[in-house]
Amino acid sequence: MVILDGKKISNQIKDEIATEVTQMKERGEKVPHLAAVLVGNDGASLTYVGSKVRSCKRIGFESTLKHLPEDTTEEDLLSLVNDLNKDPEIDGYIVQLPLPKHIDEQKVLMAVHPDKDVDGFHPTNFGKMALDMETFISATPYGIMELLRRYEVDTEGKHAVIIGRSHIVGRPISILMSQKGKAANATVPLCHSRTKNIKELTLQADIVVSALGVPHFLKADMVKPGAVVIDVGITRVEDKSKEKGYYITGDVDFEKVKEKASYITPVPGGVGPMTIAMLLKNTLLARERHRGNA
Amino acid sequence: MVILDGKKISNQIKDEIATEVTQMKERGEKVPHLAAVLVGNDGASLTYVGSKVRSCKRIGFESTLKHLPEDTTEEDLLSLVNDLNKDPEIDGYIVQLPLPKHIDEQKVLMAVHPDKDVDGFHPTNFGKMALDMETFISATPYGIMELLRRYEVDTEGKHAVIIGRSHIVGRPISILMSQKGKAANATVPLCHSRTKNIKELTLQADIVVSALGVPHFLKADMVKPGAVVIDVGITRVEDKSKEKGYYITGDVDFEKVKEKASYITPVPGGVGPMTIAMLLKNTLLARERHRGNA
Repeated sequence: MVILDGKKISNQIKDEIATEVTQMKERGEKVPHLAAVLVGNDGASLTYVGSKVRSCKRIGFESTLKHLPEDTTEEDLLSLVNDLNKDPEIDGYIVQLPLPKHIDEQKVLMAVHPDKDVDGFHPTNFGKMALDMETFISATPYGIMELLRRYEVDTEGKHAVIIGRSHIVGRPISILMSQKGKAANATVPLCHSRTKNIKELTLQADIVVSALGVPHFLKADMVKPGAVVIDVGITRVEDKSKEKGYYITGDVDFEKVKEKASYITPVPGGVGPMTIAMLLKNTLLARERHRGNA
Repeated sequence: MVILDGKKISNQIKDEIATEVTQMKERGEKVPHLAAVLVGNDGASLTYVGSKVRSCKRIGFESTLKHLPEDTTEEDLLSLVNDLNKDPEIDGYIVQLPLPKHIDEQKVLMAVHPDKDVDGFHPTNFGKMALDMETFISATPYGIMELLRRYEVDTEGKHAVIIGRSHIVGRPISILMSQKGKAANATVPLCHSRTKNIKELTLQADIVVSALGVPHFLKADMVKPGAVVIDVGITRVEDKSKEKGYYITGDVDFEKVKEKASYITPVPGGVGPMTIAMLLKNTLLARERHRGNA
């Protein structure tokens, strides 16, 4: 059994990007600049955004954090988005989700210019991804694909069952894995809350991608021996014995499933770190595109 | 066994649209106007475009056919597309595919303004469809969904196997059928040329959608008793005994498969006529949106 070490691969990718940034600097070029917009003080969001900003520093990107108060109006947020769209210094930016309830999330994501949408959430970028055109692929599915590619996991003609139809993970990964190309060409059933026989399906699967957010949902008796298991769930479980008051767990009953799997991602340290690496890769792409257009 | 009569349902939909057009006229409003761009003289394309124009006439739409010679340059075609984008008289238009080989199809489709793209081929519209937002859904998958809805075929929690991953049928129908909503909520494996065990998969399927374009690909021994069978294949087979020199056939071995199926679409007269009806429905939507914005 091989652990798909997202932390290690993520660091490799960051090192590769850092090398490119060094070369950019040597050539006297502008380095990539990522901005992050955070509204309010959600604990997990603060952690994620902090981690993104630190990663930028580490690899030599410029970064800007726009931290707005919880009671920011939709109008003010849209006005900031509009400013970021026009700002030639910013190559790409993200609006950290979830947004406070009084703000229409879809409206905000639609306002992000597709050329700066390094999260790949805008319909134009999502559509290009689905139609196999060059675009910003959203970071989590992109990270899963890259992890499979770097470990040279054979997916061609395999049965890859995806659990969960979210717009940010389940849906895009189901599309990417069934396209032509490396780490793809799989036969992909997408399962969800209305699927009646999930266990029957996962037992047939050569590859299982679980993106439900239900701790320990995928048990050892649901997995075929030798399967590749990708765990995209990240749930905080309250635990007063821990310093932070919680621990992080995935969708997979890791200790037992790893005895049956051929490859498996841990949580934390699997798909999570890959997500940040691919966001940085998208930002590098945005910079290269802007340079190309300039 | 029930024949899913696309011709009948298509006529119903056209009648419904015609009623709306009559009301528009009575209110003194502009009626929907569809334009079709045809380059060259491909036989099937001439038939399709002719049929679209006749359907417009029948239901009271205005229509314009822009028929360009085979040797039209890409530049000239893009310039026409640009004119159509700007023409306030045209609510929506299609560029009939395939285009001659010297023209970059993707470049042309990208140039069609998403608000007039009643074929739903532009990435922005495709992305909205995939993200479950209101948009122009491309006519063939939209027609399949509408046919299933009008016959009240139960798809919730069912296993719906899609054969073929084309951008205009297989991919979008796999997305639509696995979304929430009516005629959806199915568990959907998308199969393609690299899938190893298609027969094993189709034998598990409650619903099979075949969009391969291979005559008689789906045989009776590949179908579970009681399955719903949707045939999207339309192939012209040469036959000198026929007046036209060919006959039209689908992917499904209809005569034998119909003995096992609960519902089945014939070819011709199944999905084909639905495609035109949904194109008209998209054009009506385009008109309503333009009126809303005016």
